[in-house]
Amino acid sequence: MELLKERIRKDGVVKKGNVLKVDSFLNHQMDIQLFNEIGKEFKRLFAACPINKILTIEASGIGIACIVAQYFDVPVVFAKKAQSINIDGEVYSTKIESFTHKKIYDVIVSKKFLNENDKVLIIDDFLANGCALAGLIDLVKSAGASIEGIGIVVEKGFQKGGDLIRSKGVRLESLAIIEGMNDETGEIFFRD
Amino acid sequence: MELLKERIRKDGVVKKGNVLKVDSFLNHQMDIQLFNEIGKEFKRLFAACPINKILTIEASGIGIACIVAQYFDVPVVFAKKAQSINIDGEVYSTKIESFTHKKIYDVIVSKKFLNENDKVLIIDDFLANGCALAGLIDLVKSAGASIEGIGIVVEKGFQKGGDLIRSKGVRLESLAIIEGMNDETGEIFFRD
Repeated sequence: MELLKERIRKDGVVKKGNVLKVDSFLNHQMDIQLFNEIGKEFKRLFAACPINKILTIEASGIGIACIVAQYFDVPVVFAKKAQSINIDGEVYSTKIESFTHKKIYDVIVSKKFLNENDKVLIIDDFLANGCALAGLIDLVKSAGASIEGIGIVVEKGFQKGGDLIRSKGVRLESLAIIEGMNDETGEIFFRD
Repeated sequence: MELLKERIRKDGVVKKGNVLKVDSFLNHQMDIQLFNEIGKEFKRLFAACPINKILTIEASGIGIACIVAQYFDVPVVFAKKAQSINIDGEVYSTKIESFTHKKIYDVIVSKKFLNENDKVLIIDDFLANGCALAGLIDLVKSAGASIEGIGIVVEKGFQKGGDLIRSKGVRLESLAIIEGMNDETGEIFFRD
């Protein structure tokens, strides 16, 4: 998605350790006009799929998922990190390791909102090592629902997550795939 | 907002201890069509305010804030719970006590995304004791920005948060204010 790549080149900031900060428009401050263009693109890519629900994970996936959902006219469910006393006991759960926060989360979805009739599009902002996505896939499978596809805004193509997920036979569409970054020049290289 | 009250009566579940579960449409599964009606209503209420940014807090405020933002054509910034290594050191921070999770969070916003030129509409899904809102107000004040108003979807009118926030002289609009609930009959009573 050219508009997205241009925005990443313009406003993305490359930091040491292969860190790409896109917090000015994607995952701290959120550009809702851009999110709408992202929604249109995911709709174009997954137009033929009988999607009836979008699943994402808190926190930074939620905003994109909600805007994208407007183009599919379906509800969004977000997986929650850690048990809350306001969640019923009846949940699907999995464990996700966060390299960013250096800890393992329990992640849950209420059984009320995911079942064997659901045809799910998974949406998230970032794909790097694939731990969060693998957890979401696990939740969908636990519910007996089908995964119609996965839509990612930014994939770090030089980390193993993309290959890992594609090797599971799931259709994964990333709107921008980064092949490399140079933290001295600030250059960002995209996969064609 | 009558449509919202009807939905709360229909799908809200009253639990012991004055707990109202609206997770089937508001804060776990999210009804995006309803969120759009909520967005139109906040736009109607705050149409005269020169709002250039919406501020919310992760996680369940984000979806509503993003849909509402479309009616104001402004970006959303969400305050983050706890320090992340992906956040620059330059942040405003405050502490928020969560009664639901029985702990105190550090909550931060990058200084890049909130400053003295910002005219902020704060959006959140729930108002009960007001701790989260007081923290968001604190962040806006730290940045020297102005608070044009606060939009809440569901206020528990029998808890102290609403009075606390209104006593600060901030304009607070709640789309549904609950005066009481009966966990035996499931009845929910709204303020007129």
